[in-house]
Amino acid sequence: MFFASDNGGPVHPQVMALLAEANEGHAMPYGADALMDEVRERLRAVFEAPEAAVHLVATGTAANALALATLCNPFQTVFCAPVAHIHEDECNAPEFYTGGAKLTLVPGGDKMTPDALAAAIAREETRGVHGPQRGPVSITQATERGGVYTLDNLAALARVAKAHGLPVHMDGARFANALVRLGCTPAEMTWKLGVDALSFGGTKNGLMGVEAVIFFDPATSWEFELRRKRGAHLFSKHRYLSAQMAAYLRDDVWLTSARRANANCARLADGLARAGAEFVHAPEANMIFAAFPRRAHQRLHEAGAKYYVWEGQLEGTDPDAPLTARLVCDWSVTEDQIDRFVSLVAQG
Amino acid sequence: MFFASDNGGPVHPQVMALLAEANEGHAMPYGADALMDEVRERLRAVFEAPEAAVHLVATGTAANALALATLCNPFQTVFCAPVAHIHEDECNAPEFYTGGAKLTLVPGGDKMTPDALAAAIAREETRGVHGPQRGPVSITQATERGGVYTLDNLAALARVAKAHGLPVHMDGARFANALVRLGCTPAEMTWKLGVDALSFGGTKNGLMGVEAVIFFDPATSWEFELRRKRGAHLFSKHRYLSAQMAAYLRDDVWLTSARRANANCARLADGLARAGAEFVHAPEANMIFAAFPRRAHQRLHEAGAKYYVWEGQLEGTDPDAPLTARLVCDWSVTEDQIDRFVSLVAQG
Amino acid sequence: MFFASDNGGPVHPQVMALLAEANEGHAMPYGADALMDEVRERLRAVFEAPEAAVHLVATGTAANALALATLCNPFQTVFCAPVAHIHEDECNAPEFYTGGAKLTLVPGGDKMTPDALAAAIAREETRGVHGPQRGPVSITQATERGGVYTLDNLAALARVAKAHGLPVHMDGARFANALVRLGCTPAEMTWKLGVDALSFGGTKNGLMGVEAVIFFDPATSWEFELRRKRGAHLFSKHRYLSAQMAAYLRDDVWLTSARRANANCARLADGLARAGAEFVHAPEANMIFAAFPRRAHQRLHEAGAKYYVWEGQLEGTDPDAPLTARLVCDWSVTEDQIDRFVSLVAQG
Amino acid sequence: MFFASDNGGPVHPQVMALLAEANEGHAMPYGADALMDEVRERLRAVFEAPEAAVHLVATGTAANALALATLCNPFQTVFCAPVAHIHEDECNAPEFYTGGAKLTLVPGGDKMTPDALAAAIAREETRGVHGPQRGPVSITQATERGGVYTLDNLAALARVAKAHGLPVHMDGARFANALVRLGCTPAEMTWKLGVDALSFGGTKNGLMGVEAVIFFDPATSWEFELRRKRGAHLFSKHRYLSAQMAAYLRDDVWLTSARRANANCARLADGLARAGAEFVHAPEANMIFAAFPRRAHQRLHEAGAKYYVWEGQLEGTDPDAPLTARLVCDWSVTEDQIDRFVSLVAQG
Repeated sequence: MFFASDNGGPVHPQVMALLAEANEGHAMPYGADALMDEVRERLRAVFEAPEAAVHLVATGTAANALALATLCNPFQTVFCAPVAHIHEDECNAPEFYTGGAKLTLVPGGDKMTPDALAAAIAREETRGVHGPQRGPVSITQATERGGVYTLDNLAALARVAKAHGLPVHMDGARFANALVRLGCTPAEMTWKLGVDALSFGGTKNGLMGVEAVIFFDPATSWEFELRRKRGAHLFSKHRYLSAQMAAYLRDDVWLTSARRANANCARLADGLARAGAEFVHAPEANMIFAAFPRRAHQRLHEAGAKYYVWEGQLEGTDPDAPLTARLVCDWSVTEDQIDRFVSLVAQG
Repeated sequence: MFFASDNGGPVHPQVMALLAEANEGHAMPYGADALMDEVRERLRAVFEAPEAAVHLVATGTAANALALATLCNPFQTVFCAPVAHIHEDECNAPEFYTGGAKLTLVPGGDKMTPDALAAAIAREETRGVHGPQRGPVSITQATERGGVYTLDNLAALARVAKAHGLPVHMDGARFANALVRLGCTPAEMTWKLGVDALSFGGTKNGLMGVEAVIFFDPATSWEFELRRKRGAHLFSKHRYLSAQMAAYLRDDVWLTSARRANANCARLADGLARAGAEFVHAPEANMIFAAFPRRAHQRLHEAGAKYYVWEGQLEGTDPDAPLTARLVCDWSVTEDQIDRFVSLVAQG
Repeated sequence: MFFASDNGGPVHPQVMALLAEANEGHAMPYGADALMDEVRERLRAVFEAPEAAVHLVATGTAANALALATLCNPFQTVFCAPVAHIHEDECNAPEFYTGGAKLTLVPGGDKMTPDALAAAIAREETRGVHGPQRGPVSITQATERGGVYTLDNLAALARVAKAHGLPVHMDGARFANALVRLGCTPAEMTWKLGVDALSFGGTKNGLMGVEAVIFFDPATSWEFELRRKRGAHLFSKHRYLSAQMAAYLRDDVWLTSARRANANCARLADGLARAGAEFVHAPEANMIFAAFPRRAHQRLHEAGAKYYVWEGQLEGTDPDAPLTARLVCDWSVTEDQIDRFVSLVAQG
Repeated sequence: MFFASDNGGPVHPQVMALLAEANEGHAMPYGADALMDEVRERLRAVFEAPEAAVHLVATGTAANALALATLCNPFQTVFCAPVAHIHEDECNAPEFYTGGAKLTLVPGGDKMTPDALAAAIAREETRGVHGPQRGPVSITQATERGGVYTLDNLAALARVAKAHGLPVHMDGARFANALVRLGCTPAEMTWKLGVDALSFGGTKNGLMGVEAVIFFDPATSWEFELRRKRGAHLFSKHRYLSAQMAAYLRDDVWLTSARRANANCARLADGLARAGAEFVHAPEANMIFAAFPRRAHQRLHEAGAKYYVWEGQLEGTDPDAPLTARLVCDWSVTEDQIDRFVSLVAQG
């Protein structure tokens, strides 16, 4: 019963298979491998973007920080939600990679609103050389709280950015989970709305550790290459990154896995709802925040369930006190595990 | 016939096997996996250093740059050979990770001499606040030209550093190749001589992409962890790094592979010597620089051999002109490939 | 009628006189001038801190950014008020000088409360290696809105910082204005409360461009020297910085000037109150925020008064609409200018 | 007898006079002062560059580091002489301001040769993404050893840079000394040859602490403004920088002072030559390196002469041993002081 994160699960068997297959003989290093050509073409096709620049890195933080560094000068500021991964969970990597840019937190929850974004941007307009200059807008889809922006939401945010000439970055660590939720095309969720650069996640959805960074305008592609190398994120044995991403894209593994993760989460949410849990954020992708009594949490912990108690303390005197769990499902969670988890909560 | 680099070869089968084995169920992310415990204990045992701090990263540049950033302030300078990887092949990663420290090139070839090092350090003593302050000494073992420092060489360099209170970093991207050449223990080649931090290479010797960074004094271990995360080099699915390094250490795979790489190179060197080639650097580990006539190079290229023409141009009118090849053997090169290469040169 | 800032006024005549006097013959550069010895001794005496390290720089931003860089690692975060100069008015200089540290904005107004500070610090405790580590607390005294923390306020904030082992920086660009308001000693407002490093302002209070950075524990003094040089803030002709600061400290010029600035502001506030203006922030030092009708603003602008309309637009159709002015008095503003300004407002 | 540096002398009386004059009433801060308009127009006229962007900073290191940061990406390298101030005397400020760019030292002495520069640039061409990319060429005129490049020398260097599309920076801390030596126009020594950005020195030639940074193509002017502010080098009371530079340019104070400094140095060199001294570098501007016996040095030191013994130790047993002095003349050195210095050497 592992619901701590979608980064705790195994690698998809088709990925392991292609890694094994790719492990034949010698290959040119540093991205000159044949599988990278396949990856590039597949991603361009998936995104209907035949000119897009495609790069692979091994961590989501690298994807975000390098993408932002390419879009943002050190005297600028990045607009993002207060709970954005780039702000909360990257130990200042964006500040490091951009050479000291700032992050401006747009007031609100996990989903920025166009009005709040517009106000935050307007506020940074008034101080000339004294304040940081306005830089990229970074949108997380799906969000850090498991939410999914609608296409209208995204389009409205991008319009605000574009009205000020600001580039738009999408942190898509859970891109696939959002995409299958919305049922739209990758192009519709990105460049057709105004997204300039995308961190296209794979690690949380069945890879060992690969994310693509996609620039829909390839003009800064070479700069990205240099920043990736300077950041020590260029792999010599690059074929093993390529193989992961190629397997991910072949046979729609990425979509199938995301559908399964979302379905797992929906099953969990349904079960917990029936068991009386209350949801802080409505379930939209593969992550939920559910409140239920402390005694149920204690029961789960005794049974070895892994997840984060997000609000409240497991230890405490009031067995009825509601504690909030963050529960994340990856593609590999089984229905048995979900049902067992639910039944432990349902015991009251 | 792939002699372009030791980063073009396949992953060792025992590594692939443990990756597959590790791919069962869920594991705690970010280094809290059980295999990391094994790696830490094995490396401490191998180095006879029960307190050493052990961290894994995925690229050699990350290992070097993060190790140096931990040892070096931004107003200092790192002493290294002019051909050091950290100077020539990391696109300013050390400057980036240290926050703008300088690299002082110690005049000479691929092996620094104690006298040249002492003179370079002395030269940085005279300018007070105006010049950079003296920082770590970084030694590459084996060197970028395939050379191996003797233990006496290393000890003398470390003594110079220590006389000025400077920390010593060893870039051990080819640590194993040097070690088996010298036939000493890992401790003898590192902390017993005064090495403070080691980039312990794995990628060039059969891994997919893992290097360990070892601090023999663990005091800065937490700082390293933060710098690694900030540099986007902390893997969520860390177990796959751990598995590679664990397989590398089990059954002496790392030593066996290095011995084989060195033996391959010796066989190649012997053959080329018989074929009349001349060596720029004497063969000591798994890399040689050999000069032979242009027509032999052209013959090799037609046959699909992969390697770098280090000096001279493949195209040219004088078929007898000697061009220098850089030839690197990894563990996976076969005797057949070597012999075929030699025979193509030997045709005159 | 110049109330736009306290950086628009002339240099105090005693400062000009000492600059002229210091301009005799040659002097050793880079801080080895005799006047710097005087400055060091005077500041140590003023602060009852015989061991304190004293350094001069030419801008307030340099003082803050270099002080913070000395106190803060790049993987940490600085706690400050949302309106802090270091956040709003330094174009990412703290991020630049610290190598990419973050600024955590403590919710609230210009004065941080101990509770809000404690909550902000607590919030940064929970994410291990993922979030930035907790770094210095930076307190602005007097604040960016003209407020003055009481000694109790300051002590309570410092206690929160110290409870977490965090260093305390005070941005004292208007240190003298706060000090004379409180009527305490410099020691009481700084190290006796727990302040570790102080940006001791001079520029806004009659100097041409000099601020002192004082570390009450001199252990990091040499690091500061190196960071100052690296930041290009070490003056070769340092005697002209020393002369300014020496003149400032001689004959209590700094205190007399601050008293005069505060008195000017009080006179202005009294006059505006009588004229019906309303104050957003109660006048405490030399800066006020006063709301009065648009037509009075228009009258002032026609008369050439210089100040910022902080809220609202000068142009507009409703002459009665209240607009907020930010009004800052330096030591050189005359009673005539103040009275003329007030009379223009009082005309209704 | 102060020959330690040209940064030890007093401020020119016409500069002091204009500072006093500028100290009337209030002025708009941050460069919006009227004297800055005068400075801008005067420099554009002096350089026959009506579109040039002109900025003032207070230190030569700031001028160089900010100019280079504007011209150079963090993944590039700056080409300069091994003795360049930016390499030897700025404590890594260029590395800091550029965000971690490298400096490539062009082999040779204080004057780069076009061949050596071309070879150094060619060498950085071969490593693709692995090495740093080629960035600006920085030329020091006059050099750190008192040399002056001819216009032909400069043109040849610039041609090499331009052949590779690289921008050219001139470190003109002693620009005026070189200019009056060559007897050419400022335009001829800069943009007509291909110089893109100039650090136009004032501090060593009679100012308190002001240098101009001039971009002949103003496209990056706003970026420079932001980098200057972020580097904490924007002065609030900017009028005092403007006043210095305005006085410097009025009445050709800058040229007259430089001529006097050079004439002082020539008189010193002539006297020393007659006294038997030998010159390491031929005197060309206002700095010489002269070797004469230890006993003469000891005599000078007893008499209070200030200068650096560049090679050799003042203390020693052989009174005849030749030690090399670095001797720098500023505009304020008197003939009496020079003659007294010479006579002390001439005593044998």
